[in-house]
Amino acid sequence: MSVVPPGGTVGILGGGQLGRMLAMAAARLGLKCAIYAPEPDAPAFQVCDSHVVAPYGDHDALVRFARGVDVVTYEFENVPGDAATVLSGLKSVRPSPVALSVIQDRFQEKSFARERGIVTTPFALIDSDASLQAALKSVGTPSVLKTARLGYDGKGQKIVRADQQLAAAWNELRRVPCILEGFVDFTRELSVVAARGQDGQVACFDLVENRHENHILRTTLAPAKAPQRVKAEAAKIATQLLGAFDYVGVMAVEMFETKDGRLLVNEIAPRVHNSGHWTIDGCAVSQFEQHVRAVAGWPLGDPSRHSDAVMTNLLGPEANAWREYASGTSTAVHLYGKGEARPGRKMGHVTRLFPLGLRPDA
Amino acid sequence: MSVVPPGGTVGILGGGQLGRMLAMAAARLGLKCAIYAPEPDAPAFQVCDSHVVAPYGDHDALVRFARGVDVVTYEFENVPGDAATVLSGLKSVRPSPVALSVIQDRFQEKSFARERGIVTTPFALIDSDASLQAALKSVGTPSVLKTARLGYDGKGQKIVRADQQLAAAWNELRRVPCILEGFVDFTRELSVVAARGQDGQVACFDLVENRHENHILRTTLAPAKAPQRVKAEAAKIATQLLGAFDYVGVMAVEMFETKDGRLLVNEIAPRVHNSGHWTIDGCAVSQFEQHVRAVAGWPLGDPSRHSDAVMTNLLGPEANAWREYASGTSTAVHLYGKGEARPGRKMGHVTRLFPLGLRPDA
Repeated sequence: MSVVPPGGTVGILGGGQLGRMLAMAAARLGLKCAIYAPEPDAPAFQVCDSHVVAPYGDHDALVRFARGVDVVTYEFENVPGDAATVLSGLKSVRPSPVALSVIQDRFQEKSFARERGIVTTPFALIDSDASLQAALKSVGTPSVLKTARLGYDGKGQKIVRADQQLAAAWNELRRVPCILEGFVDFTRELSVVAARGQDGQVACFDLVENRHENHILRTTLAPAKAPQRVKAEAAKIATQLLGAFDYVGVMAVEMFETKDGRLLVNEIAPRVHNSGHWTIDGCAVSQFEQHVRAVAGWPLGDPSRHSDAVMTNLLGPEANAWREYASGTSTAVHLYGKGEARPGRKMGHVTRLFPLGLRPDA
Repeated sequence: MSVVPPGGTVGILGGGQLGRMLAMAAARLGLKCAIYAPEPDAPAFQVCDSHVVAPYGDHDALVRFARGVDVVTYEFENVPGDAATVLSGLKSVRPSPVALSVIQDRFQEKSFARERGIVTTPFALIDSDASLQAALKSVGTPSVLKTARLGYDGKGQKIVRADQQLAAAWNELRRVPCILEGFVDFTRELSVVAARGQDGQVACFDLVENRHENHILRTTLAPAKAPQRVKAEAAKIATQLLGAFDYVGVMAVEMFETKDGRLLVNEIAPRVHNSGHWTIDGCAVSQFEQHVRAVAGWPLGDPSRHSDAVMTNLLGPEANAWREYASGTSTAVHLYGKGEARPGRKMGHVTRLFPLGLRPDA
């Protein structure tokens, strides 16, 4: 256990909206934040105590950054391994670079889960012509080809409708290591955002339902309407993964629910997650604060929900309608301080609250 | 109407916990904050986009500050009149310096209310030996002698138990203009935190009950347990005052409730207020966000309460128990990033949430 008390400094790699909301949560607890990001106008810089503008590969800047903080965390899973190594030689990095490196690779991630008896979507590695043929046999088509590393919100992905399209799709992804994921006949996507403290304590926020458009999260419904059995199963999966990674911090587990009520793990995010944004307004302690508490060695907060919530992302120019959203009943508007409202860019979100049990079916 | 859209900058005079929580609320809305404060380590500096360290009398610094912001507001009522004048020549200052100057003076403040038919605690001005004698006649003793200007949390006040003590008490306060306030046989202190937008729209948070220790707020119970008639009367008083001042922003009205259920206005605060801190966790839109919305020309947010709340201030070394508070059920911990935990200093607060109607009687 190493504790960062009030007045201490949490260092965050990444200056986007997640880093920004982490910084604001840390400030609530009397902690200072230092943000490290390559963009000179990173949104998180607007709300932090200090910041470093430098590429993630800048060894000297990383050392300077580490010297000014008490613990390091990150807002995104694509932290270069070298940066994590440099930093972890100087300060605690949480979640650990080991968990990060497994989750950074879709094949390792799913293999890790499968080895622990957690059911995932069907998958196979493609890193050679031979493994491509093997993947066609084990997973088949229709399926989705994804680069094993990097990629989010549908980037670095190709849908493969027929076996003979696979080789071409892999060529288009430049024959980098990929995984082929079988189509799952799922009814909806659910996710659990959960945290594990340095003492091994786990706290799960309620299971939620996520709806996507064009591979980007559009809406999260909290809580998911689901039988208690499904909720318990989802929390069990998240708890199991957190323990297996000896994880410290917030993790999101995205799952598909099949028609017969089974849960298949689709993706693990080793960080705060868009599907947990509703917790800022729906819980006494948000996912952002929970993550800060965990990495700073504080007790985890009570994750219970005081209200039902519907969280909707504001993408690109949708954020221009801030005035209408701001007039809504029981509505919290969150804007991320980003300059240009490019189509599809996450500019903010709105959370509408409802008394417990009274959320309309959307 | 002049609107500061997302991306614009709100300037805040004062860098204490109120400025800090205002800055965090502005950031939620995608607004930047610039803080002006004389202390080089003002807590609000840790969470803002830019800041100026200078005395409030530094004309050049005020001009520089005003140039970098789109609207000016303040966290405390004791903004020097000169500073308000300089700033309002350059940018909109909200609430207006006129309201500020009336409320800065306890005598003017109470006279303003009384002239509008609002019942206050009994009071009289003392600025000469003759007015001292008149005050003894009209208000009498036991009573409290307060400097008309400055003073908060019991500073600049003397209790006067008998007529013959008054002259000495006034001498001790250096014969500055004072008001003598009659003791009121009240059952409890209540307050309303309310906001008025640039369009004249008013939104009142629920009436709350405040409990003090040593003249410092200890606990706020939200909502106050009170008949609907009393709640409506309190909201009416706040709405009337906001309108009379043509006020823009958040105002707090402290009232005494007498045994027979009457409300007497005790004090007006032209700013966000300690008795409104519970709104951060108990409402979708907090008093801080509401103030920012008003001064930035946004629509006011829905002030309705999603949870009952008990807010407790952490004074001085009490904040050292942050770990216990952080472990509480449905509890939000707020620490202000202040260095030294001097006895009585407001270091933070905790808000415990309860389902509507289920707050225990504390």
